[in-house]
Amino acid sequence: MVIDLNADLGEGFGIWRLGDDMALLDIVTSANVACGFHAGDPVTIRRTCAAAVDRGVTIGAQVSYRDLAHFGRREMEVEPEELCAEVLYQLAAVDGIARAMGGRVSYVKPHGALYNRICRDREQAAAVIDAVADYDPSLPVLTLPGSVVHEVAAAEGIPTVSEAFADRAYTSAGALVPRREPGAVIHDVEEVSARAVRMAVERTVTSADGRQVPVPARSICVHGDTPDAVSLARAVRDGLLEAGVVLQAFA
Amino acid sequence: MVIDLNADLGEGFGIWRLGDDMALLDIVTSANVACGFHAGDPVTIRRTCAAAVDRGVTIGAQVSYRDLAHFGRREMEVEPEELCAEVLYQLAAVDGIARAMGGRVSYVKPHGALYNRICRDREQAAAVIDAVADYDPSLPVLTLPGSVVHEVAAAEGIPTVSEAFADRAYTSAGALVPRREPGAVIHDVEEVSARAVRMAVERTVTSADGRQVPVPARSICVHGDTPDAVSLARAVRDGLLEAGVVLQAFA
Amino acid sequence: MVIDLNADLGEGFGIWRLGDDMALLDIVTSANVACGFHAGDPVTIRRTCAAAVDRGVTIGAQVSYRDLAHFGRREMEVEPEELCAEVLYQLAAVDGIARAMGGRVSYVKPHGALYNRICRDREQAAAVIDAVADYDPSLPVLTLPGSVVHEVAAAEGIPTVSEAFADRAYTSAGALVPRREPGAVIHDVEEVSARAVRMAVERTVTSADGRQVPVPARSICVHGDTPDAVSLARAVRDGLLEAGVVLQAFA
Amino acid sequence: MVIDLNADLGEGFGIWRLGDDMALLDIVTSANVACGFHAGDPVTIRRTCAAAVDRGVTIGAQVSYRDLAHFGRREMEVEPEELCAEVLYQLAAVDGIARAMGGRVSYVKPHGALYNRICRDREQAAAVIDAVADYDPSLPVLTLPGSVVHEVAAAEGIPTVSEAFADRAYTSAGALVPRREPGAVIHDVEEVSARAVRMAVERTVTSADGRQVPVPARSICVHGDTPDAVSLARAVRDGLLEAGVVLQAFA
Repeated sequence: MVIDLNADLGEGFGIWRLGDDMALLDIVTSANVACGFHAGDPVTIRRTCAAAVDRGVTIGAQVSYRDLAHFGRREMEVEPEELCAEVLYQLAAVDGIARAMGGRVSYVKPHGALYNRICRDREQAAAVIDAVADYDPSLPVLTLPGSVVHEVAAAEGIPTVSEAFADRAYTSAGALVPRREPGAVIHDVEEVSARAVRMAVERTVTSADGRQVPVPARSICVHGDTPDAVSLARAVRDGLLEAGVVLQAFA
Repeated sequence: MVIDLNADLGEGFGIWRLGDDMALLDIVTSANVACGFHAGDPVTIRRTCAAAVDRGVTIGAQVSYRDLAHFGRREMEVEPEELCAEVLYQLAAVDGIARAMGGRVSYVKPHGALYNRICRDREQAAAVIDAVADYDPSLPVLTLPGSVVHEVAAAEGIPTVSEAFADRAYTSAGALVPRREPGAVIHDVEEVSARAVRMAVERTVTSADGRQVPVPARSICVHGDTPDAVSLARAVRDGLLEAGVVLQAFA
Repeated sequence: MVIDLNADLGEGFGIWRLGDDMALLDIVTSANVACGFHAGDPVTIRRTCAAAVDRGVTIGAQVSYRDLAHFGRREMEVEPEELCAEVLYQLAAVDGIARAMGGRVSYVKPHGALYNRICRDREQAAAVIDAVADYDPSLPVLTLPGSVVHEVAAAEGIPTVSEAFADRAYTSAGALVPRREPGAVIHDVEEVSARAVRMAVERTVTSADGRQVPVPARSICVHGDTPDAVSLARAVRDGLLEAGVVLQAFA
Repeated sequence: MVIDLNADLGEGFGIWRLGDDMALLDIVTSANVACGFHAGDPVTIRRTCAAAVDRGVTIGAQVSYRDLAHFGRREMEVEPEELCAEVLYQLAAVDGIARAMGGRVSYVKPHGALYNRICRDREQAAAVIDAVADYDPSLPVLTLPGSVVHEVAAAEGIPTVSEAFADRAYTSAGALVPRREPGAVIHDVEEVSARAVRMAVERTVTSADGRQVPVPARSICVHGDTPDAVSLARAVRDGLLEAGVVLQAFA
């Protein structure tokens, strides 16, 4: 019973902060470091990478559409050549900084609207996978199980890793209940922790309509940008450790 | 008699172009590729690096202040930690793209206001050199001979290379005549070509007041963003070859 | 027989230029001035407005998605409240500069992906119209005849003006042939000029399959960013004048 | 005994927030609304203006260098024509939004590095004043008493207003003690409140070396971006009201 805990980190920009990076770095095993396109200026990236290296937390590149004004949450039409170059630029920049701090980028996690898009859009998924293949084809890509980007990656020989969300409701088909629907996000700390344990131990989740649904996840994502993010993440970690689950990065 | 010819390339952004990159890549031996902070989006960087690799032109990272709106030409007060991280980010991003295209970044050339500043400001010079040292201490930094950044680099064990400007007037002290003064830029193609030859062969230049001044340059910079840039650069190249000078990258 | 000629102007950014603004200002009767979100920095806006005022050319605000990196050509999902505020910001900024130069913004022309989107998307169209209504409900919005944004504007009491494209092929339904299809753009100068005359005099165009299609346009758009843009625009102007058409801004 | 209380507001950007705008709007009489160049996206500007109008708080345009990455805190060399156009753009944009919300911009307060620069640099001061003169010469400019920008404004017929800082130490010459010096910022709530009262009632402040120094201020600036900003601002307001001072916007 081994699981990874990942969180989005370094998502400030300039003077602005988002979440408590240092607290989260004491909880997670993998840090999705913002690369500067939706958040994350170079100083923030450097500090986040240095802190992750200090704590033995694995670093991933959290690549995004170019969209500081909307935090990478606006879905965009982008030509594949552009998207590929944008992902490559971000990946290389953060990897270079991580290496200068004594670490390295060990995986890629797309962010926000790009994450959602490549879970279903083959062309943009291929552009992201091409960038990873160009940079380092041994880097795994972390997204939803069964997503289009996982298919595209498999065809290109790029490894993939699946993640689950302990605080999100699932449909009986194993998909996430869209955020705009009621009950999509679970706020009760004990319930979230219990769901994480079941995800790690039994590889299942109880869907919104009460069924046991398989969740083939090697990593659980905890959110970092809500007011109670740190206590929720700590509860998930504590619950997993109490259940005898080993917390270990996948990369 | 060996000299390098360098030019700024990839200085478009999005839809906008600046200079004829492909023509210049057939002339120079070193390409200072814009890194995205004063110019150069990821697609442009990728295309420029790919074209440089195709032609056997050496790639350098043309790092800058973060200033797309003013093309890196506004001098800025920046904290050393920030400047260091910004340079590291740019350097890593372009090196990653260059490597994906089959090449690599082989040197660093600061751009615009940053170039001028670190030729005289020890603190900002140290920030730039720290970034190079963090990323790859074997990468030479290309600026003016006798500049403060060369001193700082020497103290840190970072190699430096000096450049000269064939189309710029020099003072009898060997400094460039400031651009705002009359006669600072030489437009006559034959004169510029002849000056380049003297720089490469005799390592001297005739100053504005008629003296022979030593110019210890391993590289000559040709500009790419003026209307007659390509013909001027070609005249310099042709003049050097006719004089028996070997054109060879320094890195 | 009265028609307006409009063109996109002031579409440089910082050091970068696009098209020959001054030449086009001698040809058109309405200038769609870029507002800073897809192109157009404050100095460029000011110079363009000043030159338009000098020549008696009417100024419009060419509002766009926030997307300098892709020139406003990436379609984006934006919340209506955000889009409305973004349009209002751009409109006010350019109107303020135009007034300082002795003119004013007299109409609104959406740009690029936003233009296309609001011709068919009611929600985004309403956001744009709300911004115009908030700022000055007497300002007409210039887009395609029969578009969704015209319906939305009519319901809100905002005036609209229709434009036609002399260098674009039309379907027999009166729509533009998509750019990616062969023959979508007409390059022959005489043909473009003749089509413009027919648009102004007969209010018709010959469709790609040879039918006479009504084109209810009060303005003809000429493009400014192609190599032969100025000569094409001048040919259109000359053709219209020779045919006795009166060139006059609609606003 | 009448004084104005001003604070910087709307200084978030996209997803990022800074300070508790709504709480501060219940305390101050003048809101310096960020214009988008150092902070403040259009939606944030619109919401801030709407909330200010609701509470009867006067709106000012907090104009800045173009520098989101460093919150307008990097001093920059800018050509006067550019700076003037940049200030005009910001001023017009926020005034347009304020008017759409039922208010208007009633004064101009430069931000950060620009504020400091124009208190001593005549050229940049003139560029800012030219922008105000171009837009609306009746708008007062709010900065330090005795600053260069006040001289320049006076010569151009632009009104000025002086402000004081209740939580900053003063020299015996009446200048602010630089932030980097010990004791430059006063954190004790009661002391700050008492100083504000003395500034409003006696028009003096006790300098760092114990002298009574005249402070000819019509407005007191309270900071909004520190953890205890709201309680400090409220203490200042309460202290002033208890002392019988009338809180009233200057514009």
